[in-house]
Amino acid sequence: MTTDMISTKAKIGRNVTLGAHVRIHDNVEIGDDTVIGDFCVIGHPAGGEYQGQPLQIGPRSVIRSHSILYEGSSFGADLRVGHTSLIREGVKAGVNLQIGSFNDLEGDTVIGDWVRFHSNVHVGRGAVIGDLVWIFPYVVLTNDPIPPSGLKEGVTLGAGSAVCTSAVVLPGTVVGRGAFIAAMTRARGNIPGGALVVGGEGHIVGTIRKLRHKESGKQHPWMTHFADYYPAEAQSAITALHQAVESDVELLERELAAKKASS
Amino acid sequence: MTTDMISTKAKIGRNVTLGAHVRIHDNVEIGDDTVIGDFCVIGHPAGGEYQGQPLQIGPRSVIRSHSILYEGSSFGADLRVGHTSLIREGVKAGVNLQIGSFNDLEGDTVIGDWVRFHSNVHVGRGAVIGDLVWIFPYVVLTNDPIPPSGLKEGVTLGAGSAVCTSAVVLPGTVVGRGAFIAAMTRARGNIPGGALVVGGEGHIVGTIRKLRHKESGKQHPWMTHFADYYPAEAQSAITALHQAVESDVELLERELAAKKASS
Amino acid sequence: MTTDMISTKAKIGRNVTLGAHVRIHDNVEIGDDTVIGDFCVIGHPAGGEYQGQPLQIGPRSVIRSHSILYEGSSFGADLRVGHTSLIREGVKAGVNLQIGSFNDLEGDTVIGDWVRFHSNVHVGRGAVIGDLVWIFPYVVLTNDPIPPSGLKEGVTLGAGSAVCTSAVVLPGTVVGRGAFIAAMTRARGNIPGGALVVGGEGHIVGTIRKLRHKESGKQHPWMTHFADYYPAEAQSAITALHQAVESDVELLERELAAKKASS
Repeated sequence: MTTDMISTKAKIGRNVTLGAHVRIHDNVEIGDDTVIGDFCVIGHPAGGEYQGQPLQIGPRSVIRSHSILYEGSSFGADLRVGHTSLIREGVKAGVNLQIGSFNDLEGDTVIGDWVRFHSNVHVGRGAVIGDLVWIFPYVVLTNDPIPPSGLKEGVTLGAGSAVCTSAVVLPGTVVGRGAFIAAMTRARGNIPGGALVVGGEGHIVGTIRKLRHKESGKQHPWMTHFADYYPAEAQSAITALHQAVESDVELLERELAAKKASS
Repeated sequence: MTTDMISTKAKIGRNVTLGAHVRIHDNVEIGDDTVIGDFCVIGHPAGGEYQGQPLQIGPRSVIRSHSILYEGSSFGADLRVGHTSLIREGVKAGVNLQIGSFNDLEGDTVIGDWVRFHSNVHVGRGAVIGDLVWIFPYVVLTNDPIPPSGLKEGVTLGAGSAVCTSAVVLPGTVVGRGAFIAAMTRARGNIPGGALVVGGEGHIVGTIRKLRHKESGKQHPWMTHFADYYPAEAQSAITALHQAVESDVELLERELAAKKASS
Repeated sequence: MTTDMISTKAKIGRNVTLGAHVRIHDNVEIGDDTVIGDFCVIGHPAGGEYQGQPLQIGPRSVIRSHSILYEGSSFGADLRVGHTSLIREGVKAGVNLQIGSFNDLEGDTVIGDWVRFHSNVHVGRGAVIGDLVWIFPYVVLTNDPIPPSGLKEGVTLGAGSAVCTSAVVLPGTVVGRGAFIAAMTRARGNIPGGALVVGGEGHIVGTIRKLRHKESGKQHPWMTHFADYYPAEAQSAITALHQAVESDVELLERELAAKKASS
């Protein structure tokens, strides 16, 4: 049975480790030094425009057990995928994407470099996700403005933004650089860079400077206290992003102060 | 090992395609031209009243990898099940049920024809789901009024209703025909046909005519703009449902106007 | 292939039943009379401090198909794990833990006796969960106070507390004995024993005595009407907990009445 499981058409790099009962389909290109866990399905056939397109997995990647990746997607080096995640066709991701377990990426999504998804993140088709974004458990990026409609208005998440646990990002929402969507928030519309958004109505309640942890002194933007969690290659991008977000925060602080003064 | 995996007692139709390492238990009846993906468990033994009852899967069905279906359930023709979904015992579904990935159907549920669940839908026991219903990701249909209590008050969803992302439908809720439960809403009580329900308090904020997409002109009821997504056999039911929902909407518009006038 | 799947270093008790294609790693100790379903991964290697530590599963346990348990965790007798659940390293659980399907336990968690998780429960690292707790679908116990920060402030759930569907428990929250977190609530801070917490702001709206089901007369604390669902060994603990929670409820009722009178 084992011979059937690994397509002879797949291009498998050097020093690739496959777990037990891994299924590898035809249009697969796996980079060197990659590890794939038990019971994974790699290169699952896709329909439509991505049919027969390659699944490209960069070198030094780790994909944990029971995960399913479709053909027609590509990932840079150092991909990490947790257990039991599903990634459909049409995802184009940069380097060092790390997604947790039980993720559900519907496909047709552009993802930057050094992006992090925790467990159970749902990404609807049409999303555009910048560098260094964080998404936490049970977040849904939606795309249908009046479901069911067949319309697709994907979500855009600016570089360095964070979407927290159980938040829903409504269709067509544009989240600015470094913005923070709090837990159980329903985010919508155009959210300026550096904004702090909270609650079912998705109100902007201030800037991310409000996010300060008294005991440790750590404060957003997170680039001041969390940069060490990223690889060396990411550091200059983090520094540049930090400056841009600080500038956005300054601007928004002034706008909010002016709005308050005039009301 | 392969011979152990497929019970000789299972009734498997013509032209059925099984993926790698599919497990098929005894009380299974699979219709012709069905496809079952890798690592599925089909006909998992059930306890209680459904023990030893058949799992019936209609012809032309597709069940994707890593999904688990228990014995004691039945599905009409053209079933679609995504990856890594779990369907327990006691589900009775009509034709062309389409459910996505990571669904969790607890069992004891009646489901009409042409019903659509997106990913990660959780259906608690005792639910009754009408024809042409739509449920979106991370929705939970609950059933215990004061958990944990052992009481079961299933949810009823009227034909053509839509329950949007991350909504929770509280125990015993009855959702009328064509009603729309918005994202992250906590729905409760008796919701009239054609109602639009929004927010953590589950308020009725109007009728579904409010759901209009300016750019495209598409507007609810969805039967005007989304009927093409269903098979030919569904069209007369959609037309009849459309008329019924329009009538419900008219009635509710008048009621809400009268209530507003008197307040 | 089968021989590779089961490590000869694993300690497997008497009368243990393994499903098809179960993978068992080295540092595994499985108690007698345990059942493990198809496609499970048992004793998955962990990193960090738990690397090489045993996974201990008590006797008479049942773990359903497609589930994954890491090394470095221990579970008392009569463990139940549903399908497609993930339990990482560093979980120390008492007897008769029952978790449903699609659970995601991140690790580093202490769990008491007779605890129940429904489907799709997400437990972040650092949680401390008392005896007889209930958690319902799509609940997230978080741990990062200003994500992403690398800080970890785990959640504490007191004995007999219940966290309902789609609630989020914010980092560092301490939930008192027998408290009840309603569906879609965002719980935070120090929640007194016997409190009823509702809504996105996590307000205490009264005590759990408000949770009364008219038709059946069942009322919280649940120990009055739900004790029969637990095994005989749990009954004296339930009785003692009931008395403690009643005392907390009395105290809180008086506090809330005093606060109301003074406002």
